Amino acid sequence: MSAELELELVIGGRPVRFPAVWLRDNCPCPDCLVPGTGQKVNDITDIPNGLAITHTEDAGESVLVTFAPDRHRSAFPRSWLEEHALDGGGGDGDDRTEDDKDLWLPADLDGLPAMSWPSYLAGGKAEALEAVLRLGFVLLRDVPAEPGRVREVAASFGYVRETNYGRLFDVRVEDQGSAPGNLAFTSRAIRPHTDNPYRDPAPTIQLLHCLRAAGQGGETGLVDGFAAAAELRATDAESFGTLTKTPVSFGYVDKETDLRASLPLIQLSPSGRVRGVRFNNRSMRPLRRPYAEVIAFYTAYRRWAELLAQPGRQLNLRLAPGDCLIFDNTRVLHARTAFSMSEGSPGRHLQGCYADLDGLASTLAVLGRSGNHGREESR
Amino acid sequence: MSAELELELVIGGRPVRFPAVWLRDNCPCPDCLVPGTGQKVNDITDIPNGLAITHTEDAGESVLVTFAPDRHRSAFPRSWLEEHALDGGGGDGDDRTEDDKDLWLPADLDGLPAMSWPSYLAGGKAEALEAVLRLGFVLLRDVPAEPGRVREVAASFGYVRETNYGRLFDVRVEDQGSAPGNLAFTSRAIRPHTDNPYRDPAPTIQLLHCLRAAGQGGETGLVDGFAAAAELRATDAESFGTLTKTPVSFGYVDKETDLRASLPLIQLSPSGRVRGVRFNNRSMRPLRRPYAEVIAFYTAYRRWAELLAQPGRQLNLRLAPGDCLIFDNTRVLHARTAFSMSEGSPGRHLQGCYADLDGLASTLAVLGRSGNHGREESR
Repeated sequence: MSAELELELVIGGRPVRFPAVWLRDNCPCPDCLVPGTGQKVNDITDIPNGLAITHTEDAGESVLVTFAPDRHRSAFPRSWLEEHALDGGGGDGDDRTEDDKDLWLPADLDGLPAMSWPSYLAGGKAEALEAVLRLGFVLLRDVPAEPGRVREVAASFGYVRETNYGRLFDVRVEDQGSAPGNLAFTSRAIRPHTDNPYRDPAPTIQLLHCLRAAGQGGETGLVDGFAAAAELRATDAESFGTLTKTPVSFGYVDKETDLRASLPLIQLSPSGRVRGVRFNNRSMRPLRRPYAEVIAFYTAYRRWAELLAQPGRQLNLRLAPGDCLIFDNTRVLHARTAFSMSEGSPGRHLQGCYADLDGLASTLAVLGRSGNHGREESR
Repeated sequence: MSAELELELVIGGRPVRFPAVWLRDNCPCPDCLVPGTGQKVNDITDIPNGLAITHTEDAGESVLVTFAPDRHRSAFPRSWLEEHALDGGGGDGDDRTEDDKDLWLPADLDGLPAMSWPSYLAGGKAEALEAVLRLGFVLLRDVPAEPGRVREVAASFGYVRETNYGRLFDVRVEDQGSAPGNLAFTSRAIRPHTDNPYRDPAPTIQLLHCLRAAGQGGETGLVDGFAAAAELRATDAESFGTLTKTPVSFGYVDKETDLRASLPLIQLSPSGRVRGVRFNNRSMRPLRRPYAEVIAFYTAYRRWAELLAQPGRQLNLRLAPGDCLIFDNTRVLHARTAFSMSEGSPGRHLQGCYADLDGLASTLAVLGRSGNHGREESR
């Protein structure tokens, strides 16, 4: 009886091979895998050392494999093996990098990814959530312009991430006499930035719901940070490299809060693909690196900031009451123009909250199961 | 009038220098920095190009600096400059890596980091939270063994992270007839693992509160994953390298959920220091990398699993009703031994919830401000 360390077979006309240990770790029998959940029963250390394949048998739809030393038998559906071929370029399963996104400049967008709240509830949800994953944002219209509704939008696809700002927060001009703790609560322009870079983990989704528009100005701008990062890499690889390697500290302090986090402005996957951006000069803390690194960082940082501020990168939206933006806070920077406070007008009022991409992607995946057409609420 | 690109001075007897752009970006004047919050008013692109220092003046406690081309004047306290010297080895501000932790084996621990809930509330909170950051866990005793109390513990230092398991979840043996969706809800042993590796961002803190102990067995084990990673690096650098570079997909599926995330088992900071571990064979999905990488991965993965399973690495605790563990889910793996279900006994019952390290660290920082002695509630 020969013992093999791999299974070789021809599937769909091409030769494929699987290591014995990989097969055994993915054995689908009910002793190895909990039916329904895909959870494995065993740990990797439960697999015997010196594992080998002693027997392989073609059983039509399945391939039967017997392992030494313990004579465990597994049946692998051929279709499953074909789907999970190792060298087939299936990728690493990480859908958070630039490779799984459609990068954009405003001029490229074929219309806004937008939908009314009634359409969203009546079957459009999957399309809207897919836009958040692919383009980094979606605009929902006609969400009733009532306080607290933004939480309902978040709950339609995931879970609110509560922070020191509460489960939801109001963005409006605060009484200037009370010295606003955050520039968001003034009428000043705010350049493109990501929220909460001083948090780790930072919220991966932000929602902004317009209850009242500004009299003049107060437009909301969105910038695709992944598209900008790709441009920086193409035009100034050295600056790009500096920004991926330099940890930058951000902080936020008020009476009850003292948040700090230190991460690079551009975060990469292990294979070097862009996976996240953090950008917010307001909350950046003094950089404490060796002198030469500080010089290199500031050159790269200014280059990056200038690139992000290019007018052609910013999609400008004038949010009307009822508009609710959902965007990927690890990718899309947001900005706003200054606005005027007309005498006696109640002024601009947004409500926002944070949530996370994993819950959104889960909801989308469940909607995509056969039998679901996005009409049912998934929770 | 000469223009300098840096400021050189002697502080505390040693020469230090700061780039002009760094100084200007950190100017503490009220036009540049919002008093109280440390938020910057300007963006990096608001700083003029061709910035230089035209005049420096010693003003006793402060150094006055005048910048070209816009003649902006800044006053930097000498103490602040000393504190923020660039080459002084102040580190990168990232306190999440192994460098800012006390790595441990159970034998090294000088007693358990433990405290009663009344002591925690009466001034011990800072010490307890500091243990979570430094050692990765703390045990609170005498938290009333009542349902829902674990949320109160979480709210004492941060915010509950709601997930598909709810704002809190029960860990007890479910009726076997209903086919438990998760192995946690059986009486089986569970080897050291981190929770929710199929989530991104994964919860960074977990709490487990014991309401009823098991009749026999059901001990909780904790393993310092950062200490284990350091050992792996020291003894098998190749396996360590493989685990930091190979993205591994995790998944969790039930009727309403389809979560997936793909990240390496050992995550590093940009400077190559251990910053997080994910480990859970139950929810690992088939690895789809080129054949040679799969072989290398399984060699490394088994080595890592064996190292984590070394009995000398596992701190075993028998949780009594009222005990509440708080631990760092990016660092400390948890496990449990199998337990018996005695006839007619209601069985082991824990309640858990998730939270995040950033909120915990913020609460600790606020408690550390002068005037706070940990006695007040910080929220």
